[in-house]
Amino acid sequence: MTKDRLIYLPLGGAGEIGMNAYVYGYGPEGKERLILVDLGVTFPDMDSSPGVDLILPDTAWLEANAHRLEAIFITHAHEDHIGALAHLWPRLKAPVYARRFTGRIAEMKLDEAGIATDILHIVAPRPDTVNVGPFKVQFVPVSHSIPESSALVIDTPAGRIVHTGDFKLDGNPIVGEAFDPLLWHEIAKEGVRVMTCDSTNIFNPNPGRSEATLAVPLGEFIAAQTGMVVATTFASNVARLKTLAEAAQASGRSICMLGRAMKKMLSAAVESGVLTDFPPIVTPEEAVHIPRENLMLIVTGSQGERRAASAQLSRGKYLGLSMKDGDTFLFSSKTIPGNERGVIRIMNAFSEMGVEVVDDRGGLYHTSGHANRPDLEAVHDLLAPEILIPMHGEHRHLREHAKIAMAKGIASDVVTNGMMMDLTTSRPQVVEYIETGRTYLDGTVLIGALDGVVRDRIRMGLNGHVLVTVIIDEDDVPLGDAWVETMGLADKGRSGSSLGDQIEDELAEFLERANNKLVASDQKLDEAIRRIVRQVSMEEIGKKPEVSVVISRLAAE
Amino acid sequence: MTKDRLIYLPLGGAGEIGMNAYVYGYGPEGKERLILVDLGVTFPDMDSSPGVDLILPDTAWLEANAHRLEAIFITHAHEDHIGALAHLWPRLKAPVYARRFTGRIAEMKLDEAGIATDILHIVAPRPDTVNVGPFKVQFVPVSHSIPESSALVIDTPAGRIVHTGDFKLDGNPIVGEAFDPLLWHEIAKEGVRVMTCDSTNIFNPNPGRSEATLAVPLGEFIAAQTGMVVATTFASNVARLKTLAEAAQASGRSICMLGRAMKKMLSAAVESGVLTDFPPIVTPEEAVHIPRENLMLIVTGSQGERRAASAQLSRGKYLGLSMKDGDTFLFSSKTIPGNERGVIRIMNAFSEMGVEVVDDRGGLYHTSGHANRPDLEAVHDLLAPEILIPMHGEHRHLREHAKIAMAKGIASDVVTNGMMMDLTTSRPQVVEYIETGRTYLDGTVLIGALDGVVRDRIRMGLNGHVLVTVIIDEDDVPLGDAWVETMGLADKGRSGSSLGDQIEDELAEFLERANNKLVASDQKLDEAIRRIVRQVSMEEIGKKPEVSVVISRLAAE
Repeated sequence: MTKDRLIYLPLGGAGEIGMNAYVYGYGPEGKERLILVDLGVTFPDMDSSPGVDLILPDTAWLEANAHRLEAIFITHAHEDHIGALAHLWPRLKAPVYARRFTGRIAEMKLDEAGIATDILHIVAPRPDTVNVGPFKVQFVPVSHSIPESSALVIDTPAGRIVHTGDFKLDGNPIVGEAFDPLLWHEIAKEGVRVMTCDSTNIFNPNPGRSEATLAVPLGEFIAAQTGMVVATTFASNVARLKTLAEAAQASGRSICMLGRAMKKMLSAAVESGVLTDFPPIVTPEEAVHIPRENLMLIVTGSQGERRAASAQLSRGKYLGLSMKDGDTFLFSSKTIPGNERGVIRIMNAFSEMGVEVVDDRGGLYHTSGHANRPDLEAVHDLLAPEILIPMHGEHRHLREHAKIAMAKGIASDVVTNGMMMDLTTSRPQVVEYIETGRTYLDGTVLIGALDGVVRDRIRMGLNGHVLVTVIIDEDDVPLGDAWVETMGLADKGRSGSSLGDQIEDELAEFLERANNKLVASDQKLDEAIRRIVRQVSMEEIGKKPEVSVVISRLAAE
Repeated sequence: MTKDRLIYLPLGGAGEIGMNAYVYGYGPEGKERLILVDLGVTFPDMDSSPGVDLILPDTAWLEANAHRLEAIFITHAHEDHIGALAHLWPRLKAPVYARRFTGRIAEMKLDEAGIATDILHIVAPRPDTVNVGPFKVQFVPVSHSIPESSALVIDTPAGRIVHTGDFKLDGNPIVGEAFDPLLWHEIAKEGVRVMTCDSTNIFNPNPGRSEATLAVPLGEFIAAQTGMVVATTFASNVARLKTLAEAAQASGRSICMLGRAMKKMLSAAVESGVLTDFPPIVTPEEAVHIPRENLMLIVTGSQGERRAASAQLSRGKYLGLSMKDGDTFLFSSKTIPGNERGVIRIMNAFSEMGVEVVDDRGGLYHTSGHANRPDLEAVHDLLAPEILIPMHGEHRHLREHAKIAMAKGIASDVVTNGMMMDLTTSRPQVVEYIETGRTYLDGTVLIGALDGVVRDRIRMGLNGHVLVTVIIDEDDVPLGDAWVETMGLADKGRSGSSLGDQIEDELAEFLERANNKLVASDQKLDEAIRRIVRQVSMEEIGKKPEVSVVISRLAAE
């Protein structure tokens, strides 16, 4: 018994915002029984992952230890917490636990992936308890920017863990449960060994604001507009959808929702019972016939996503609806760092149409779903954990959060993906470094981020590509000239003639001079051709392209 | 005489922030004598211009009318105003006018490009006047974030134009001239026909702050640090360099400048006489031997640029210097939208080293070089122009600026790149749409943004590339099987075997069945092969790659 230990191993989400996946284990070293909290994705970008569809955590370690995995718990239905579930579940095959709304979203995802949904278990909030292996797990309602977000109270023989999930302190979150300090006080009473805590807004020095503070300014704003109003926010922010819809209704506007995610989230909220009194909505077909001043659209695409409804509207007609001079577009949202270019593109496209574009006006029309520093500190004090592990943050967030905890005398450390920590000892200690990383969903295939596939794409994207074909006859003599095709490279360079022709000329000269021994070796010939291609390209256009050489050897018959 | 007109034609900078190039003309329609104000660049990104080195305005129209171009005026030495000068001058060949500091930077650029610098004329500020064709042009000192920034007063027979350039209202800009309301009052007295005005900060509702307000907070901050301090800002912000250096000196620190741009700007500032009393600096070789607590580095790379000094330090040792636990890195700068990812990458890399990373703390350690809305309005009122043309802004900025002007009864309009405006009539009127756009410096070659070269690179970057080689003999019969190479694509897909092999098998089967007529036609064979490659790829990996087909036909001998 004395050899049993409590371990913590983030596989994603620790050292980044996104792709959350946290493992806890309890038992003898190497034989700990495991649970996984969350299994999310992060989103690709052109800089580092062009053409990739989704980025998932590398769960190789967990797959190799799947026989020890008791269960998967999903704290809430944001993509960075649930998005990888259907993609990776077949490799993990453990029962999944979630609350109703989250469960409904999980069900849709599993269903689409052809996974039987009976692996999914819907859990009521504390005091309901899931007993798996050495763990007793309860879902504790917290306020966030999606319904039924939960912290987890994980009781183990080594003590209590409170895994906060994503949360804010909101006494009136409009949809879902308010933050309840008494409940947390009660949880704290029995003693908290470890608090694993959201770090997203650790750098924000102001107390967070309630979702409820938005109703009046949004209502006044929408009532003051004279044309059509189009508002965007995260589809999963059901409370915001409700606030926006009620404001529209109050100003005599019909409400129309655009974008698949909107419908999906709204129906999940209704089906799971978390949303009961949403104003009536009209279809796009009906909306077309409603005077613009009596219409409000609530649309997807707050982050400038190219295929979302907002971007479609910024390019022209969408489902028969279009924006024009005198209309208003409202971002009831914040731009996530990295998405600025897409958001600005849409703003300017609307500006060209004469549409008034309004952002969150410094928080007047949007509030964050994460606890700010003073709120986080209040919860530290409320729970008084022995150990605080910052999670859900980039390295700089985790570091700041750990510093704050340590300044209060709480044992803390910066724990990033792949660091397996022993939480049984007085201070958290690294016991092993697990290889982690990113897995790409690329088309329909999962590939490793370091497999070189995407690296090659980036290189072609930056440098262009030259293809060289040479045919070598039975006697190791080149048959005709090399054939060159270029892609993604300037047609003409310094000499004023075609780059392809220049390379072909240079290769012809080389092949003429080349001795049989060189021509006979695929490797040497390949290397020599590459060198010439790059050299000519550099001289002509100042770039070193990627080069593919195809050597076809005619077999002696 | 009555047929002469005054025209304005932005070729860059109107509808975007960057790539400034504004044409003014006066004379009979189609025969106006022209001047160009500024010739800047904008910077590429992976999303839209991977692998591109610089983005320049498309000056085709101006090149075609180069015989009418009297002169080029450069308002200041920021890259978005001067960066294209050396690249495009050979196509325009007009004399260039600038003040000393700007001229020194221009000289370096022309020199590097092998252009004789005698085309460059250094002009003193107003009342000095450049007479070119029908224009009398004066440089009017304004405060901005680079020394000797200037507005232009352009007198024409149709009245006075004030082209503000980039400016802020700063009574104490540390380096260079303060904003002088009396000077502007005097300019306004003679009547202003047109004000062409900076719009960058039109959405900022607060009065701008002087560069001088930073000295105390920066001084206190630097004095409070116990390790090495590294600060970054734009190298061209010579005033900031001075404030930082003086703060370092006051706290007993030696100053070391890292990054080529730093040295270039500092020496240009000294050589041109705008900077006279900069604290002494030490070389990196000397800095290595100075205790960290007595050292401050001022480095390039405030925007997270991968090759700048800040990024080099974030990756480890740079010129013998490296950061460590207890050191401080200060961004005395703002992140330009679109650069967030690069900046955040550096912040986290420093965080991993234990370095304290501090941003501008909401303006405490940085102030903008552009006038905010109240400042802009003050200048509108001071100059009281008949017409206000917003420039230097995205569409949304120009639109907002025009609305504000019109609300005051000033004639205004949103004028974007390529709109040739007649400014002689009571309200500005579009007289012609000129084809404009972007020119890419790609390696050493200038290519059009719409030439398809970069589009092909983006496609390869997103979709990967499959190369197919087939050899067809003298009788139109395939010689052996097709040869397939893939680049940037998953090795294995749904079937579990190599994607390349799968495609080759499918192509072999196709070639076996294909009739002579199809094989005899390059076009038909190419199309058929492409279709098969895409189909197999879609089935195997869920992606449609770019395809290049090389058909080699053996000539009948």
